[in-house]
Amino acid sequence: MRSKRDELETIEAQPAPSALPSSLSSATVGSLTERELIERIQERLPPSPDWMPVGIGDDAAVVEPERNRLEVLTVDALVEGIHFDRAFTPAEAIGHRALAVNLSDLAAMGASPRLALVSLALPATLPCREFERLVSGLTSLATRYKVHVAGGNLTRSPGPLMVDITVVGTVKRRQVLTRASARPGDDVYVTGTLGAAAAGLQMLRAGSGALNGAAGPSPAESCVERYLRPEPRVRVGVLLGRNRAASACIDLSDGLADGVQQIAHASGVGMIVDAAALPVDKTATRWFESRGEDPIERAVVSGDDYELLFTVRPRDRARLNAAARHREPSITRVGVCTAERAVLLRRVVGERTADAPFPRGYTHFR
Amino acid sequence: MRSKRDELETIEAQPAPSALPSSLSSATVGSLTERELIERIQERLPPSPDWMPVGIGDDAAVVEPERNRLEVLTVDALVEGIHFDRAFTPAEAIGHRALAVNLSDLAAMGASPRLALVSLALPATLPCREFERLVSGLTSLATRYKVHVAGGNLTRSPGPLMVDITVVGTVKRRQVLTRASARPGDDVYVTGTLGAAAAGLQMLRAGSGALNGAAGPSPAESCVERYLRPEPRVRVGVLLGRNRAASACIDLSDGLADGVQQIAHASGVGMIVDAAALPVDKTATRWFESRGEDPIERAVVSGDDYELLFTVRPRDRARLNAAARHREPSITRVGVCTAERAVLLRRVVGERTADAPFPRGYTHFR
Repeated sequence: MRSKRDELETIEAQPAPSALPSSLSSATVGSLTERELIERIQERLPPSPDWMPVGIGDDAAVVEPERNRLEVLTVDALVEGIHFDRAFTPAEAIGHRALAVNLSDLAAMGASPRLALVSLALPATLPCREFERLVSGLTSLATRYKVHVAGGNLTRSPGPLMVDITVVGTVKRRQVLTRASARPGDDVYVTGTLGAAAAGLQMLRAGSGALNGAAGPSPAESCVERYLRPEPRVRVGVLLGRNRAASACIDLSDGLADGVQQIAHASGVGMIVDAAALPVDKTATRWFESRGEDPIERAVVSGDDYELLFTVRPRDRARLNAAARHREPSITRVGVCTAERAVLLRRVVGERTADAPFPRGYTHFR
Repeated sequence: MRSKRDELETIEAQPAPSALPSSLSSATVGSLTERELIERIQERLPPSPDWMPVGIGDDAAVVEPERNRLEVLTVDALVEGIHFDRAFTPAEAIGHRALAVNLSDLAAMGASPRLALVSLALPATLPCREFERLVSGLTSLATRYKVHVAGGNLTRSPGPLMVDITVVGTVKRRQVLTRASARPGDDVYVTGTLGAAAAGLQMLRAGSGALNGAAGPSPAESCVERYLRPEPRVRVGVLLGRNRAASACIDLSDGLADGVQQIAHASGVGMIVDAAALPVDKTATRWFESRGEDPIERAVVSGDDYELLFTVRPRDRARLNAAARHREPSITRVGVCTAERAVLLRRVVGERTADAPFPRGYTHFR
């Protein structure tokens, strides 16, 4: 964890705001030194494991590879104004999501997460309290999934807050899941429910009034929670790879419409997805209907669900049942792969079924 | 290499600008799809090596670890407006520097680079031509050092251009260089020359007029080149680790003043550095003097040199000579480690030597 000399360093004449308890402090990160910021990260981290002889604090981290396993690496960034709005996204949720989206990518490969590198670009005006909450959201999730923060980078941003995370996981060679191995006849499954995160985002944008009225956590709050703090499907992904139940897998960070196209394209198959089978979140359904929107349409084009979409050979259904023995998340069969290359959404219209090209994901900037 | 559905995707109604030769095209990255941008990166990359069964295009990359070696990981970001100014930094140099600063970190650990993950946040208005030049600067350096781009992330930026790169290298366990193993009596060395990059940056800021006058590459241009396209000291770092000549090592991304403090602090030693021995670049010296600045002072507090600072036990001097047998870069002894913890700069004043606390690096935002 390092930063260039000209970043996030203190103006010496200022009193050291870090001497204050952070709850009393109105300091911004621009008034702290790099070392102070790094210390605030380090104090939330567990001790370095044996396999990491050099962690945060040198030019780079040094780690011992796991024996007899392949490594899986991915990077994903969250950018203020593109992926989140600080007006309604708590800093702690920003830290959580930034790591969760990466763990979701590992899950889609069947890999167990191992370590992360965290690169932060911080506006100098960011309150230290917000910085600490962001770090706390990130390190809490890291601790739950035994992900060790091996290092990172701190820099000032002249504009948006950015959180860029690289994660490294491991998987046995024969247990790697890719997008490219679906075959005609494979069944198509999805974990959990769809559309909740998109509804949650709309609710947040609509303002807090939409969430009030009920005592205790309301159904609406569950959608908001799904948007703010997605739970990466690490356990399911690892199980699907480990017992080789899935033939292909992808995460739904970019939505179901993107996911089906990606698997179909990479595997050279088509798909028919049954609209009636799609596990659209019930609260999200009511929310979309109240706005005059088609819940199916919204649920398939919306991203941010971080569920897994995967295919299973019919003969491997018993393996899937073994991998899916846990109550959470639910697993739903939604379609089948076809030799015909088209990717279709099948709906019941009156008494007939009608197949239409699968809706495309968003094609504009948010 | 992926991007969220809402990033960098095309507005369908627009004509596909990628059909034009890029030299004729005035398209911006915001008018291209993610897939088109990724293709422009992929076409500049060599084929995936055998040890990378899954490269760009899936949820994550999959690589086989190198046997009997430790892995070294680091991440570093270049942010427009903080680390570079697009007004006088060619896009190709941005790509070069973004990778070079990371390779420099690996060099300081004695590690050989292996792969990189590239995360780009691009303003939608960035011309495609600039994007391609940035990619070209990055991939050219990657090819020279046999670094394979295993994946990455593309996102739109609402503000600055950002290039965040994670690199992974490998090193044998007994050949790792850290900052923490210098001992009193060890000699202190630096590679190459100091201050050229800082002078080059000042020259660029002063405008092109300062560079004119001579035919062919002028000395001033060598300083500018040092700033724009630093050469990471990978070979020297690897050699110093391999024959165990160096007891401690750091790269000078943050300047000599920072480097001596970091090694001294991590190793629990002091240092005396001889100002007269410092290899300050000759053109930079003239440049600083012409501006009424002290060249020594400027050279020690300036960053961006990406040289290596390292310590050598006196008994290992023969090993150093073996590691330093190449003509480039030069290697200069500049001081000695002491049991007394102070880090001092020794200057000759009249007929006496005077030791003063080592100047501190920059303490303000650039």
